[in-house]
Amino acid sequence: MRLISYQSETGPRTAVARGDGYVDLHKADPLLPTQMKQLLPMLPTHREAILQAAQTGKLLDPTKTRLLPPVVEPQKILCIGLNYADHAAETGATVGDEPVVFNKFPTCLRANDAPIELPSVSKEVDYEAELVVVIGRTGKNIPQAEAMSYVAGYAVGHDVSARDWQKGKPGKQWLLGKSFDSFAPLGPELVTVDEIEDPHNLRIQCRLNGETMQDSSTSQLIFRIDFLIAYLSQICTLVPGDLIYTGTPPGVGMARNPPVFLKPGDRVEVEIEKLGTLSNPVVAGA
Amino acid sequence: MRLISYQSETGPRTAVARGDGYVDLHKADPLLPTQMKQLLPMLPTHREAILQAAQTGKLLDPTKTRLLPPVVEPQKILCIGLNYADHAAETGATVGDEPVVFNKFPTCLRANDAPIELPSVSKEVDYEAELVVVIGRTGKNIPQAEAMSYVAGYAVGHDVSARDWQKGKPGKQWLLGKSFDSFAPLGPELVTVDEIEDPHNLRIQCRLNGETMQDSSTSQLIFRIDFLIAYLSQICTLVPGDLIYTGTPPGVGMARNPPVFLKPGDRVEVEIEKLGTLSNPVVAGA
Repeated sequence: MRLISYQSETGPRTAVARGDGYVDLHKADPLLPTQMKQLLPMLPTHREAILQAAQTGKLLDPTKTRLLPPVVEPQKILCIGLNYADHAAETGATVGDEPVVFNKFPTCLRANDAPIELPSVSKEVDYEAELVVVIGRTGKNIPQAEAMSYVAGYAVGHDVSARDWQKGKPGKQWLLGKSFDSFAPLGPELVTVDEIEDPHNLRIQCRLNGETMQDSSTSQLIFRIDFLIAYLSQICTLVPGDLIYTGTPPGVGMARNPPVFLKPGDRVEVEIEKLGTLSNPVVAGA
Repeated sequence: MRLISYQSETGPRTAVARGDGYVDLHKADPLLPTQMKQLLPMLPTHREAILQAAQTGKLLDPTKTRLLPPVVEPQKILCIGLNYADHAAETGATVGDEPVVFNKFPTCLRANDAPIELPSVSKEVDYEAELVVVIGRTGKNIPQAEAMSYVAGYAVGHDVSARDWQKGKPGKQWLLGKSFDSFAPLGPELVTVDEIEDPHNLRIQCRLNGETMQDSSTSQLIFRIDFLIAYLSQICTLVPGDLIYTGTPPGVGMARNPPVFLKPGDRVEVEIEKLGTLSNPVVAGA
């Protein structure tokens, strides 16, 4: 199943894809919830109801359906740094036994086609294509062998990064450089786990103004999804809607000679096999 | 005004203090919201209604009123590192022109008297007394001169920190060491701005099993509240309920000789003048 969140007249709502269109789940079946975070833990038990809604529900008017990020207000956006061996090498980092973990704020999220706003206080905004894992149910200290059962689905993500803020500030914390508003495009859709045979074998690409800048496969992930869920859930309880940005492959702008940074008028597309293409224009922000 | 969140039969609710008791705001006046995050932006405009509810509403049964953190599910918990000059010195850090910023997750929050759970994977859990700022309205790129008008109130906070995870992991990111479940006690109350003449002149203390470990004043803050709000709002939009843990004074356990770390059976009290005392037992966690 392919799911979206969209902006209705009464606020965010959840819809399921039928062909090129979408059906509002709660309108089609009042027993289904309006919000993605409520829907995610129900996916295994309400699969038939959702499929039925998709088949028989009324299609939304696409001219009145403004897409939102698939999860509108996640409690956490966990992010993994240096999780492709080639990308770690291009940044000069060595990879240890444990991943680098940082995060972004919900105010970073943007839907497909919404602008990435370049902050006036950064001169080094970079792109990063990423596979995003969407958590489906609550768990703490999740055994690695059970970890994949906590995944509701996957989405295409973009980990926009202000390198000057990520690396040049006191304490060397990445948070601010990763957390400017609009620095986490996500979507357009959330694709449920049943559609993806092997999340560790998906081609992942990033194009800047049509030119391919990153082209790799999630087979290159150093710390894989089941490990990450087990590792992170040692620390904090994972809840439905939590997102894990799993890291980016080689080819980022800061590692190029000369470096490439985003500028107003650019367009960045992130494409992941079977998950779709996330395309966002770049504009000058405040 | 002193405000709390508490657990009712139908979920979290907001109440206002009258003497030693509390009045449910929405029950006293149906025009007032049930949730703290909705109430915060209404404080300036609905002050009279809240005061009226406090005076005339029915007191809650204290035996049936389980306290929650004053803000139950904030969108962001921003935290400032090394923000007292003496504490920066005891850790060996130098202070630059900009603060060290990190964060915690909403799953870290705990109410007064709720246990701090020591994770089995850390041997170095430390205490940190902190003044917490509660944001009252939405803002981006807030001018420093207007920043204090974005503050709804203050609360006593405890920035529990697993030093081995904060400092010893790849990438040197503090996030995980600061974000174990239960690592952000907050409360018991949120005290609104009208009660606090000068937030930069409050005595702040931490006691471990009755012994004073930290004793300073918020007058010692290096980066003050108005600066922090202006600085952080350059990065991300601040929204009602966002919390800023403003940093801790000298006397933390890791800087002692020999170091002092928390153990099961301990009790940590953080007291801030005019804001109250936050007291939490320490237990062995999973």
